[in-house]
This record gives sequence, structure tokens and C-alpha cells, in this order.
Amino acid sequence: MKLGIVIFPSKKLQDEANSYRKRYDPNYSLIPPHLTLKPSFHASEDQIEQLTVILDEISNRFEPFQIKSTKFSSFKPVNNVIYFKFEASEVLEELQKVINDNISGDMPEYAFVPHITIGQELSNDEHSDVYGSLRMNQFNYEETVDRFHLLYQLENGSWTVYETFRLGKE
Amino acid sequence: MKLGIVIFPSKKLQDEANSYRKRYDPNYSLIPPHLTLKPSFHASEDQIEQLTVILDEISNRFEPFQIKSTKFSSFKPVNNVIYFKFEASEVLEELQKVINDNISGDMPEYAFVPHITIGQELSNDEHSDVYGSLRMNQFNYEETVDRFHLLYQLENGSWTVYETFRLGKE
Repeated sequence: MKLGIVIFPSKKLQDEANSYRKRYDPNYSLIPPHLTLKPSFHASEDQIEQLTVILDEISNRFEPFQIKSTKFSSFKPVNNVIYFKFEASEVLEELQKVINDNISGDMPEYAFVPHITIGQELSNDEHSDVYGSLRMNQFNYEETVDRFHLLYQLENGSWTVYETFRLGKE
Repeated sequence: MKLGIVIFPSKKLQDEANSYRKRYDPNYSLIPPHLTLKPSFHASEDQIEQLTVILDEISNRFEPFQIKSTKFSSFKPVNNVIYFKFEASEVLEELQKVINDNISGDMPEYAFVPHITIGQELSNDEHSDVYGSLRMNQFNYEETVDRFHLLYQLENGSWTVYETFRLGKE
């Protein structure tokens, strides 16, 4: 089965992201707004229990930490993805690295850029229009991350949560 | 915010349920297939942490248990809902009762009928057609429940998992 590991931001930030995703993200109905720690990878149903042991152990080693976003950004020219960009955070980067180092599967294709996608699969014209109107917006979303989730994908492309891992919980 | 407590069945059963929900359930894209333990109730963001303490304590008192479904059923004439009917299970009933007794909020309007909805808001004609063609189907879905989830609803009506509670995990 296909698995993924993500952080769901606060309800407030999810609602805000969805107000854009509704129009600009074809994955809008498949998964709530999220910050990806490990993109989708394959594992058998037998392996999932072993994964939860590893992730539980990792989550105990980290304390809750802050994330902060003040602007939109885009991955263009790599791809036409628009997202909430998060400021560099040593703890978040360490968490992402430890998870990817300890769980087999393909290594991430790109360097880790903490983000929440709000638009993707946009044509060049759409991207230019939407990003042009959003890029000057400034805001200040700051919140505490105290958990992450292991998800699996159903046959229709949607994702179900398998388990939650609380940071710093023994 | 609006919260709910559910069991997600196995991926296999979710995929099976979605093959019907896609056509017959307007909530198809808002939440994965689920067995409701406590229907949506209101709580403030401050109360959610206290809820997780109660649910954690409850989950420790229960061991994983089996659920079994062999047929479709319908809530008609109360409403035009078609569902996978689950056989009576003392443990499941006890779990549902303990959760509802320990968490404030409206008491359930109806007696607990363990089910996974596969169609709802059907017209009388649709209900008659669909249920007529499904009701003779027999199957044998039997699986282990070893966790439940606390969810919250976003402004667009979709649900995000807040936390997972493993049965029997200390």
C-alpha cells in the first residue's frame, strides 16, 4: 500500500489553505491541507506495524516546535505549485531528516522545502495570474506542531490516517 | 469546533465502501468510510486536550476486538440510508457506551446500530432501486478493530484526524 507522513496545521490554517485549494488544487478533496514530511512510498501491510514502532520512537525524541509562514511562494520553473512557505526551522528539518533516514523508500527527489500546497497542476497562464495576485500578500501564521500522522492511500486516491504520533509524549 | 469519533475499517473495506459511496453518498469526498462511535458534537479548542486524556484512558481499558459484516441494511423508514450492517458485538457496544457516557454533548438520538454508510440522501425511488439490488448480496467481512480516531470538521465540511487511540496500548 501507499503511505505518507504529514503534519496537519491548525484548523484555522487548513481553512485558509482550503479557500485557495478549492479553486487551484485538484487534490482538494483527497487529503486535508498538510505539510509533507515524507512523500508517498510503498510498504506492505505487514510492514506498517514496524513503521509505527520506528515513528513512535522518533516522535519521543522531539519536543513540540513552532512553525511560521509569512508569504506564498512557488516551485516554478520546476513545477507550477504555489504554496504557503514556512521559515527555516532546525527542528523541523531534523525531524524530516530523521524520518527519511530511518524509513526505507526512495530518498526525496528534492531538498526539503517546508510548505503547504495551495495550488498545483496549473497551466503557465493560470500560475502567472494566481501567483501574481498572491505573491504580494503578507501574513503571519505561527503555530505549534505537536504531532504528525502516518497515512495510507485508498484506491480512489484519497488518504486515511493510520496513526498519530505526538511529539515528546512518552 | 465540531468533533466526531470514528473507527476506520481496513483499507479493503474502505475501498469496497467507496465503490458504492462514490455514486450514492454526498459525503464521499468529506470523510473516508467509517463506523461512527460518537456523531458530531461541539467542543472548544481548549476542551480538545482534555478529551484526548479521557479517550486515551478509555482506549487503554479495551482490547482489540473483531467486527463482522455479512449484509447491507437500511434505516428506512427513519431515513434513506443504506449501510454495511455489523453484527452485534458486546465489546463494540460497550466501547460506544463508555465513550458517550464520558464525553458531554448531546446523547445519541438513536439506539447504536454499528454500521458503515454507503448511501444517503437518496430519493425514495433511488433508495428502492439501489437497496433492492444490494439487499440480496451476501459477503463476509471480518476484521480486527485496534484503534479509533478523534476528528474535527473544517469549514468546508471535510474532516481531519486530530488523534488516534490504540486499544489496549499502555
